[in-house]
Amino acid sequence: MPAFKKNIGVYTDPDHNLYIADATPHHEDIKDPSNLKHGEVVVQIRSTGICGSDVHFWHAGCIGPMVITDKHILGHESAGEILSVHPSVTHLKPGDKVAVEPNIPCHACQPCLTGRYNGCESVLFLSTPPVPGLLRRYVTHLALWCHKLPENMSFEDGALLEPLSVALAAIERSGLKLGDSAVICGAGPIGLITLLCAKAAGAEPILITDIDQGRLDFAKSLVADKPGTLKTFLVPQRKSPEELATLMNAELGQEPDVALECTGVESSISASIFAVRFGGTVFVSGVGKNKMQFPFMRLSTREVDLKFQYRYCNTWPRAIRLVSSGVLADIRKLVTHRLGLEEAMMAFKIASDPKSGAIKVQIINKD
Amino acid sequence: MPAFKKNIGVYTDPDHNLYIADATPHHEDIKDPSNLKHGEVVVQIRSTGICGSDVHFWHAGCIGPMVITDKHILGHESAGEILSVHPSVTHLKPGDKVAVEPNIPCHACQPCLTGRYNGCESVLFLSTPPVPGLLRRYVTHLALWCHKLPENMSFEDGALLEPLSVALAAIERSGLKLGDSAVICGAGPIGLITLLCAKAAGAEPILITDIDQGRLDFAKSLVADKPGTLKTFLVPQRKSPEELATLMNAELGQEPDVALECTGVESSISASIFAVRFGGTVFVSGVGKNKMQFPFMRLSTREVDLKFQYRYCNTWPRAIRLVSSGVLADIRKLVTHRLGLEEAMMAFKIASDPKSGAIKVQIINKD
Amino acid sequence: MPAFKKNIGVYTDPDHNLYIADATPHHEDIKDPSNLKHGEVVVQIRSTGICGSDVHFWHAGCIGPMVITDKHILGHESAGEILSVHPSVTHLKPGDKVAVEPNIPCHACQPCLTGRYNGCESVLFLSTPPVPGLLRRYVTHLALWCHKLPENMSFEDGALLEPLSVALAAIERSGLKLGDSAVICGAGPIGLITLLCAKAAGAEPILITDIDQGRLDFAKSLVADKPGTLKTFLVPQRKSPEELATLMNAELGQEPDVALECTGVESSISASIFAVRFGGTVFVSGVGKNKMQFPFMRLSTREVDLKFQYRYCNTWPRAIRLVSSGVLADIRKLVTHRLGLEEAMMAFKIASDPKSGAIKVQIINKD
Amino acid sequence: MPAFKKNIGVYTDPDHNLYIADATPHHEDIKDPSNLKHGEVVVQIRSTGICGSDVHFWHAGCIGPMVITDKHILGHESAGEILSVHPSVTHLKPGDKVAVEPNIPCHACQPCLTGRYNGCESVLFLSTPPVPGLLRRYVTHLALWCHKLPENMSFEDGALLEPLSVALAAIERSGLKLGDSAVICGAGPIGLITLLCAKAAGAEPILITDIDQGRLDFAKSLVADKPGTLKTFLVPQRKSPEELATLMNAELGQEPDVALECTGVESSISASIFAVRFGGTVFVSGVGKNKMQFPFMRLSTREVDLKFQYRYCNTWPRAIRLVSSGVLADIRKLVTHRLGLEEAMMAFKIASDPKSGAIKVQIINKD
Repeated sequence: MPAFKKNIGVYTDPDHNLYIADATPHHEDIKDPSNLKHGEVVVQIRSTGICGSDVHFWHAGCIGPMVITDKHILGHESAGEILSVHPSVTHLKPGDKVAVEPNIPCHACQPCLTGRYNGCESVLFLSTPPVPGLLRRYVTHLALWCHKLPENMSFEDGALLEPLSVALAAIERSGLKLGDSAVICGAGPIGLITLLCAKAAGAEPILITDIDQGRLDFAKSLVADKPGTLKTFLVPQRKSPEELATLMNAELGQEPDVALECTGVESSISASIFAVRFGGTVFVSGVGKNKMQFPFMRLSTREVDLKFQYRYCNTWPRAIRLVSSGVLADIRKLVTHRLGLEEAMMAFKIASDPKSGAIKVQIINKD
Repeated sequence: MPAFKKNIGVYTDPDHNLYIADATPHHEDIKDPSNLKHGEVVVQIRSTGICGSDVHFWHAGCIGPMVITDKHILGHESAGEILSVHPSVTHLKPGDKVAVEPNIPCHACQPCLTGRYNGCESVLFLSTPPVPGLLRRYVTHLALWCHKLPENMSFEDGALLEPLSVALAAIERSGLKLGDSAVICGAGPIGLITLLCAKAAGAEPILITDIDQGRLDFAKSLVADKPGTLKTFLVPQRKSPEELATLMNAELGQEPDVALECTGVESSISASIFAVRFGGTVFVSGVGKNKMQFPFMRLSTREVDLKFQYRYCNTWPRAIRLVSSGVLADIRKLVTHRLGLEEAMMAFKIASDPKSGAIKVQIINKD
Repeated sequence: MPAFKKNIGVYTDPDHNLYIADATPHHEDIKDPSNLKHGEVVVQIRSTGICGSDVHFWHAGCIGPMVITDKHILGHESAGEILSVHPSVTHLKPGDKVAVEPNIPCHACQPCLTGRYNGCESVLFLSTPPVPGLLRRYVTHLALWCHKLPENMSFEDGALLEPLSVALAAIERSGLKLGDSAVICGAGPIGLITLLCAKAAGAEPILITDIDQGRLDFAKSLVADKPGTLKTFLVPQRKSPEELATLMNAELGQEPDVALECTGVESSISASIFAVRFGGTVFVSGVGKNKMQFPFMRLSTREVDLKFQYRYCNTWPRAIRLVSSGVLADIRKLVTHRLGLEEAMMAFKIASDPKSGAIKVQIINKD
Repeated sequence: MPAFKKNIGVYTDPDHNLYIADATPHHEDIKDPSNLKHGEVVVQIRSTGICGSDVHFWHAGCIGPMVITDKHILGHESAGEILSVHPSVTHLKPGDKVAVEPNIPCHACQPCLTGRYNGCESVLFLSTPPVPGLLRRYVTHLALWCHKLPENMSFEDGALLEPLSVALAAIERSGLKLGDSAVICGAGPIGLITLLCAKAAGAEPILITDIDQGRLDFAKSLVADKPGTLKTFLVPQRKSPEELATLMNAELGQEPDVALECTGVESSISASIFAVRFGGTVFVSGVGKNKMQFPFMRLSTREVDLKFQYRYCNTWPRAIRLVSSGVLADIRKLVTHRLGLEEAMMAFKIASDPKSGAIKVQIINKD
């Protein structure tokens, strides 16, 4: 039986404060597994990545229709250690390392029953208001959504499976296949992970775009030891989407089969629409403005499929296989900063500062 | 050997004139089949439907990037009679009734080789400038793109296969399947044919929308003898897309699986995006403004697939089966006006006058 | 509060007996809804169709690996009336008419989470040993798998949704689409329902095969009032699969795009493989011998996709729409015999006698 | 203008002879490009791989329905140098290195028009009787089917694109995607190339099977420098398909999502059917016996998709990208033997001798 410490969490609120305070479940309550419900476990969160959406909730107080109206715990990229399990749980035991899939779908609505539980009509998504996030010392969660990690994966690795899930879902639903030419728009964390996935899926050639040369250089170095072609494209100012598409395709050497959009920026999506081949796909992972203007006639006369990813489903087992086996081992290179749970405010400051050079900041809880 | 008359065609020009004048091929030249090239036939055009795009070329002088810069023959919805064939042609003979597929793709580019010849990089599309259209007395065409009609189909039927092809292509690529709920936006010719196709494909329930109650009434009467549900929705003014979607879904009784967009109007497409279920498809057949604003965050958080149809490929054999067998016999009800080739200007006037009550105007060439 | 009668069920056993005896749940136990578990309801079963598999369990004692080792209640095509509900159930109330989806999947395994719960690794399928079936007066079931019927659907209609689900799943997964040519092999209950679905989905032309002319005549009459082509093919003796395919395609007038196999008979499946076009699909719904011989080189050189249906998933809501709206109203014509619950042995006798002319025998429980 | 030598070819005949003799086109005829037809080029064949089917034609005189009834030139895995071009050819010029796609489809039948020209109803496939193969010094071919090679690819590389095309087509149509678990049955040339493709497409984990430990060792070494899991499975004698599946899955550590069958052997295919997960795919590339027995009830109750590859279509551009870029550079390791055109009989002897250790034997024509 571990010695439980006080449970704390990293909060923001409608006034854009960011602070640490007491959190539930209370450490006294979770000492006794008999307080757990059917299927539940207690997880000591050990590593949590800061997502752009965490920063956005803090700074803007909302993402689209999801609004912070009360104090709210952030964080949804986590891995931890099982502390206790309800007797109904058989595939996990105390001491197990797990990655947390931060959702609890209903299993009864049409999206759930048809295998797309990310569209669950009554999902609880941990860190989307009002459901508290994972930046806590302890959480209770359903065992079903705690994925056991193999020996050779660390908590840090486990916390990376959440952004990896976003990229895997996009790669899968985009239809990208071996030998497809691809453009990846944006070299932030999701863009870079998407790059690793696109390489692992055999895309050839690949072009990655960004407005920051440093990120493009990082992208280059990230896959430097892998066969195949990576071109980079520093997005110039004051060009139309048509012009950008022409420049991108000149650099790529052909029209891409697929564009994987990780910026959520209107001009980038429009450029992708102009770039892809007849019948190609523009697949959008990012969030962005509520409304955007797209080149309708180009979409129409080129039969461009425009598709979108919202969170993920059924990705963790696959993600674990790919990282544990080494296929996506390089995802580890994305963690540039590690800070303690008590240093969370500093971690968020680094994560939100473009000058910090941070790619992925993780918050570590040693005990 | 028929007695050839002078070949004439229906022209427009950059000054928006509409007139009849001499046309090629010259009737003397086609008397002698030895003037034909490998694979060619001479067709006497007997029925041609006027498409909205014909009217648009006349009135606006362009559709997107396709611009009329010289006198130009209109028309691409045609059927006719084979007058002569090159010796290389074995599946057609003089006297055969054929529907004309108005394109000549290259068979060598990537879209052609992968079965999407509507995206051919060097296609000749009859009636898209500068390629002359089919509103002529005689045309030469490749036998490959002349589809023989069975006994029980008329030239009028044959000319309807072109707009039917647009709808069939959309239904197929939209993924609509038996028991899917569907919204059809727009009750013009393409919307109405799409309605017939959606009924024939087993969509249930169906809602059709328009801004004209008369068209909705026509839609109702068009399928009155068929089992299943058709709701109509008269699109009100001054409603947001969200509000329209709410009203549409209330009428339909559920979120549609698929929206088949036949208006090309921004507000209608946006309403469709709000209406469809999580993971649903908005499939756009119409042309419209070069740029349009769409509800990006709705697309993203609902994983709505936005797809587009450009012309068609591989639809004629299927279309012939469906009309000849009676499955889509009701398509014939769409022809509201028939005028002679020499009355073409009157025919265009009717086709372009909303008050005429015209659905599909056909130009008939008796001899 | 209804006056509960004694609960009884229709049993078979390893000695191939068929009899009525007392069944659980005990009527005293279900009087009190507090005995129900979370999500449960009590259903008074009112109509149950006899499936070929029920007869097979009685006669053969097994289907493949599913073996009867104890007394066992049959029946899985049922509709009934809700008698009571656990307080957690909100979408059903006493008096509601419901169709029973006879499975309880786990919601946690890979097939469940990916939307194919028919492949659930620990599914309880009602009537597959040792899980008792629905040929009882009363059953408890999860509300999630009781689908509320609209006013215009009877219990008899509701009980037909189970075999309809088999056909709908096949039609959907076969990829059959508007204007596809189709062969349906076998004009038994599943073949006939598949015919109705294929018609409703716009298949054209259609050929249905059987070894019994009476069944083919019934098929003809079943769709006599519908537009489109139905050819019939009385399967001759002593023909090779190649010969059968040649004869079938001559009758159909072309190579089918899809063959929907509802016989489970080796020679019929082989003939279908020879019949379909290059790249066509042979979709098998039936059960049959453990091992079968197929024409491998034909499959290979024609790229025939061979696919299979096991039970169904996510079909009831769609099935209710299609029957209630009238699109598949003709499914009602399949019920040729109706007998009371106490006459179950007679009902099974009729259902298993080829000379009875029975298509679908239903067992009715009036009170 | 090169100095033309006498054209020769490698022949077999109905009596299973194998010999070199004069071949067409006559070297005098091709000196003058004016003898070429529209779209034609003359290629000096420089490298040709020997395929198992070449050996089979020699030894057995037939493959399924394709029978050798006269003297017949073998070979279809070739690359060469353009010697002359018809004036209509613009994308190739004398001196260009090209890989030969050994087919001439008709561009007019349904398979051609729908993008699956490997199913062309009147295809000329070079080396399938009676169409002569490519084991000649000079051939005329359509420029459309001569794919220009980049600087960094040799004739030897170019000749490997044909077997690579078989594997690429299988990988694509199998639906294999990043992180899918896969079994590859057979470690012959196609199995090994399939292994390279499956690795490049991100399959994880992978199991490869064979009856020869040496081939499994070669497979291991082939991908030794790549991240990810390759297990090998030496197929034991006298095991049932169920037992083999159990052993294979134990080695793989899970049920495979996809089995890529490259043996064409009944027991191997049956084992694959037992091995894959519910809803998995068994994808067969090999040829084999005309009829085979498969475990029908397993296919049915597990909804296993059984699919097949026949030759390939639209693979060369993709194949060139993947080899030239280095993604599939290791395919070069498969060439174990190189012999001159005049040594063709020795080359075939090596290729057909299991003890030779040959993987891919290429016949080189230096001048």
